[in-house]
Amino acid sequence: MNHERTTQYYGDYLGIEGLLELQKPLSLRDGKLIAHDEMLFIIIHQAYELWFKQILHEIAACQQVMSQSTADDNGPDMNLVVHRLKRVVEIWKLLNHQVDVLETMTPLDFLEFRELLHGASGFQSKQFRKIEASLGLKMENRFRPDYYKHTEFGGFNEKDFDEINQFEKQSTLLQMVENWLERMPFFDREFWRDWEEMPDESESDGYSPFWIRYRQIYERSLSERDEKQDLLGKFDDIFFHAGWGPFRPTALRAALFIMLYRDEPMFRLPFALLNSLIEIDEQLGNFRYRHLQMVRRMIGSRVGTGGSSGEQYLQGAVNRNYIFRELAGIITFLIERRHLPTLPPRLRQALRFGFETR
Amino acid sequence: MNHERTTQYYGDYLGIEGLLELQKPLSLRDGKLIAHDEMLFIIIHQAYELWFKQILHEIAACQQVMSQSTADDNGPDMNLVVHRLKRVVEIWKLLNHQVDVLETMTPLDFLEFRELLHGASGFQSKQFRKIEASLGLKMENRFRPDYYKHTEFGGFNEKDFDEINQFEKQSTLLQMVENWLERMPFFDREFWRDWEEMPDESESDGYSPFWIRYRQIYERSLSERDEKQDLLGKFDDIFFHAGWGPFRPTALRAALFIMLYRDEPMFRLPFALLNSLIEIDEQLGNFRYRHLQMVRRMIGSRVGTGGSSGEQYLQGAVNRNYIFRELAGIITFLIERRHLPTLPPRLRQALRFGFETR
Amino acid sequence: MNHERTTQYYGDYLGIEGLLELQKPLSLRDGKLIAHDEMLFIIIHQAYELWFKQILHEIAACQQVMSQSTADDNGPDMNLVVHRLKRVVEIWKLLNHQVDVLETMTPLDFLEFRELLHGASGFQSKQFRKIEASLGLKMENRFRPDYYKHTEFGGFNEKDFDEINQFEKQSTLLQMVENWLERMPFFDREFWRDWEEMPDESESDGYSPFWIRYRQIYERSLSERDEKQDLLGKFDDIFFHAGWGPFRPTALRAALFIMLYRDEPMFRLPFALLNSLIEIDEQLGNFRYRHLQMVRRMIGSRVGTGGSSGEQYLQGAVNRNYIFRELAGIITFLIERRHLPTLPPRLRQALRFGFETR
Amino acid sequence: MNHERTTQYYGDYLGIEGLLELQKPLSLRDGKLIAHDEMLFIIIHQAYELWFKQILHEIAACQQVMSQSTADDNGPDMNLVVHRLKRVVEIWKLLNHQVDVLETMTPLDFLEFRELLHGASGFQSKQFRKIEASLGLKMENRFRPDYYKHTEFGGFNEKDFDEINQFEKQSTLLQMVENWLERMPFFDREFWRDWEEMPDESESDGYSPFWIRYRQIYERSLSERDEKQDLLGKFDDIFFHAGWGPFRPTALRAALFIMLYRDEPMFRLPFALLNSLIEIDEQLGNFRYRHLQMVRRMIGSRVGTGGSSGEQYLQGAVNRNYIFRELAGIITFLIERRHLPTLPPRLRQALRFGFETR
Repeated sequence: MNHERTTQYYGDYLGIEGLLELQKPLSLRDGKLIAHDEMLFIIIHQAYELWFKQILHEIAACQQVMSQSTADDNGPDMNLVVHRLKRVVEIWKLLNHQVDVLETMTPLDFLEFRELLHGASGFQSKQFRKIEASLGLKMENRFRPDYYKHTEFGGFNEKDFDEINQFEKQSTLLQMVENWLERMPFFDREFWRDWEEMPDESESDGYSPFWIRYRQIYERSLSERDEKQDLLGKFDDIFFHAGWGPFRPTALRAALFIMLYRDEPMFRLPFALLNSLIEIDEQLGNFRYRHLQMVRRMIGSRVGTGGSSGEQYLQGAVNRNYIFRELAGIITFLIERRHLPTLPPRLRQALRFGFETR
Repeated sequence: MNHERTTQYYGDYLGIEGLLELQKPLSLRDGKLIAHDEMLFIIIHQAYELWFKQILHEIAACQQVMSQSTADDNGPDMNLVVHRLKRVVEIWKLLNHQVDVLETMTPLDFLEFRELLHGASGFQSKQFRKIEASLGLKMENRFRPDYYKHTEFGGFNEKDFDEINQFEKQSTLLQMVENWLERMPFFDREFWRDWEEMPDESESDGYSPFWIRYRQIYERSLSERDEKQDLLGKFDDIFFHAGWGPFRPTALRAALFIMLYRDEPMFRLPFALLNSLIEIDEQLGNFRYRHLQMVRRMIGSRVGTGGSSGEQYLQGAVNRNYIFRELAGIITFLIERRHLPTLPPRLRQALRFGFETR
Repeated sequence: MNHERTTQYYGDYLGIEGLLELQKPLSLRDGKLIAHDEMLFIIIHQAYELWFKQILHEIAACQQVMSQSTADDNGPDMNLVVHRLKRVVEIWKLLNHQVDVLETMTPLDFLEFRELLHGASGFQSKQFRKIEASLGLKMENRFRPDYYKHTEFGGFNEKDFDEINQFEKQSTLLQMVENWLERMPFFDREFWRDWEEMPDESESDGYSPFWIRYRQIYERSLSERDEKQDLLGKFDDIFFHAGWGPFRPTALRAALFIMLYRDEPMFRLPFALLNSLIEIDEQLGNFRYRHLQMVRRMIGSRVGTGGSSGEQYLQGAVNRNYIFRELAGIITFLIERRHLPTLPPRLRQALRFGFETR
Repeated sequence: MNHERTTQYYGDYLGIEGLLELQKPLSLRDGKLIAHDEMLFIIIHQAYELWFKQILHEIAACQQVMSQSTADDNGPDMNLVVHRLKRVVEIWKLLNHQVDVLETMTPLDFLEFRELLHGASGFQSKQFRKIEASLGLKMENRFRPDYYKHTEFGGFNEKDFDEINQFEKQSTLLQMVENWLERMPFFDREFWRDWEEMPDESESDGYSPFWIRYRQIYERSLSERDEKQDLLGKFDDIFFHAGWGPFRPTALRAALFIMLYRDEPMFRLPFALLNSLIEIDEQLGNFRYRHLQMVRRMIGSRVGTGGSSGEQYLQGAVNRNYIFRELAGIITFLIERRHLPTLPPRLRQALRFGFETR
């Protein structure tokens, strides 16, 4: 039986008393709340920030694993990373649901305290910027990066601005994922010696045997219309020359390989990891889109409380601020499962029995 | 153009700094969180409590309107009550969604800090009890009221216990709704003089003309199986003698009348109000049911951290702790719309042009 | 008790046998389904089409009421219209949820039968086009209207194309709403005689007293930044000269007035109606956006099965194919509730006691 | 480039024309639908049946894999099983969402055609019974099995009754899972020779070394209150003597072992499989519970259209008709991760490198 334990009390453990004192509506006059809905406005934003803290907690734990070059790609650690990224997806679905509650506030109800918020804006959420940054959204890839640089009205104060700038210098999850992909040893010549599907020209432009073969199959799979889009040219460019967005060709090749052979036991976790990143991006997209709709319903085309041009800025961010879009885009280059080259026995064995990535 | 305004900053307005300092995990050792998921556990409960505060805020505002005997049943105030009750429904849907996030914590992850919570339990949420009480859940109608009375291990501390006891003495929303229903003047003889559907025996056992007529139609609508259940006897009992649960017969008659003639303009808000109460009850039921499922997945049949017998208590609460179940149950006594008696012109006019309730 | 009734059987009543014979996968070979997921693909689209039928059923019923010029704006009929539009919103939320199920199909699983669908495309859903058309999406307001005109590969066949063209000639819900708004008699001089807030210049450019006054208040409410956007000029243009999108100025004024005085009992239904239209638009937007995301995950940048350029077309439709956007945009021109002019007693009485619209 | 392909057309491929002819409302009189909402009632049930077909399609595919004794527990086939069970969970979430749409039908609207359904009831859904049966719900474990046996009014017709009876004789997913669990070779003496945590008495009552050790640790983990519940006695009974519900002790031991060591690469799929079964049960529970609530709101305590006592039957089914409850209940017997015995190297290696189950 268990030894003596300290007794806890729900309210003390959770700091409820302090928590319920943090709502300080500006429309409070002599103890009376003039704008009833300001309470909702405060509480929903505090709930967002609580969840943002949890998301940052999960991302940090993932980064700690991913930054170790010795991580076993199929071991318990990687399992945890996937588990935590999936939780981030679930939290984000909840955050998107929260918009339903905010939409019970009508434009007229918002107008009752909107002016009091003068200068304050969701744009100033430090944690949200940190989430974007720690995932890998680069300043230069954002819609209107100039918005982020000013520290005046509607922007961050200097202290927060510096803190975010500092934060952005750290390694991002995207970079760690890229490095991890590049460590994948699938294309080592050793595995492919004597491969039964070895193409005639076993090397060309630096393409390894697998990719020479794959490129042939992919070319055959293209429809006339696909050809008009020059998908083959894009294939070469993305996977062998220029890369795509923030990703280098080597990393993109490993990602495509994982997507193709995702049914192999050894690829299940790596695939789940890539998929979670894509889902996070999708939920972030939903978040921006729902937010845009909500702003349209709440303030229309007027200038936001923080001075942002509201609707236009948000529309731009919806269309642009993706982080892992290129990972999702890789599916353009898949072929049918039944045309997939059979892997050489040596590699299959290694995949089956596991190897430490380099 | 606007006069000078004070400039606000998002983080200050929302007290973010204080908010993010309130997470004090018990498994923190030398700055390191031993049980990674304890953070989730704390944050989700804090989010619940934030939303509970908002719900109490809405209920209090509804009570303020409903407690005025002069409230115009079809005026802006009643409109606000319905609007706010619908918001409570929306918030509760969100709280039910939150369980999805909690379920990303596995039993083994919970076990890592479960023992540290010794004595603390969601049962001790003061705000949750206040919500139940302010809506109208009476101590004596709860499952196992004895659980609420002890102040020892796993129960409320004395201060909170006294506070809740004090709180429970206040008028509840249910009582206010009942009083408001009883003020409805629909059955004033004045309206029904010369009614074209006047039944032969214009009075019987104190039934007013409408109800004599309605009882006849209802009786004809019953199937053989309905008769076996003695639905007519229940009708008499509920609407004219004993009442039902916490509701008196007069109030139940008014509620049934509102449900029957809900398409009349003047009944739209009263009907929406009754419907919102039923929906709140339904969402509360969902909340208890999801919570029960979550506990089953998290601790199985073990005794809860607060010493409650967990599963059994929650199952009992799911089946029993309804607040407005009788309001929902009224639909058992509806008849088909095409058999509805035509209302007398005097009442129709009054309904159309509005009257202050007594 | 009830007279003799015909006995029904669930399966016969619902035509289940026929329903379950309608799945004819193209990848069926000698009774064996080669591509397991083709069943999902068929069933989800059939579910979409069932729900589309229900939506058309609801819209047609709404149109029947709205097309009667004698409809009582606050009577049972209008109540039904709002009820049914809200149901359309609920159905659309469900359709958006369905995407979650479709996303359990992986790109590789889709590739297994994608080629067999050659030429078929969701673009060819006749019912979806009819929904858009009956709500009021005009061909010329669509993104890339030229796509709709061809009857070749990937487009409608001639029979369906003609049917849709015929269908598009009918009156739309948007037109009926516009006519109904224009019938609103609020601004009849009669109501405003002796108004206590009568502006000095009681007429100007054809603005009625209310709008002269409102324009003054609105102007004062504008911030410096709002002025830079020339919101006052837009106000004049939209509500008095050019109108906005498909809406004429008279209709937009009535809509703004309803939004401003939505708390008045007589405006509750009209406001709920406008709000439902805005919500339908929002859900349609969500539908397009989710669909776009799903396509990105399923086929990437490849050309769609119907030959559409997929992603780009869908992105264009998300940003452009709104139907009631201008109704939502009206909120840009709201003022704070406490600055709202008090309505003249004559109008208040009319609003309270109801009037038939002209 | 691709060879010639047959061109398809959306409407033909999906059988839309036939699909949209299957709605035959009973309240149709001379081409006019008397009860507007009967269309919704038909369409939502047809949507349910479409999705039921998909669920049966997925379960059948899972059964095909699970019934092979040679299935590789960690191979692509088992991957597919988990993938498909997860899809069943997603579909069930959608079905639960559908109730929201049905709830837009009011009791009075339902009363308009309710009598016409006389005898027909959702109870008669053949596919739903097949889903329950194929998962493993035994007739004798159902609430009120007698309801299922009659073929009269409100029950199945004889043809369907026989079909279901025949169907119930087939092997169920539960049985296949049980057999698969019993094939697990973890406790082979071979793996445990020279185990460093070998307990003193290396055998007792047929307990293998691992379980002797585990039982000691579990006993130490019990609190005073746990002991009052005699959890240790239950442990012995469930895992070594009587089994639990439909599960034999050997299968339950394997399931507990998988839950304990779920972080091991080789256990990820087996754990995901067990978890999916528990989630399906949870969603089925939600389905029954939502259905119960909906019936309460639609017909109250009256007898259902099929003559069932409605509410009581559904309440009984909610509390009783679980299929995999004992799998979920296993978590009662978990211990903290840090107390978990270290596995012997031989077993770890086998887990890591995979073995075919016997």
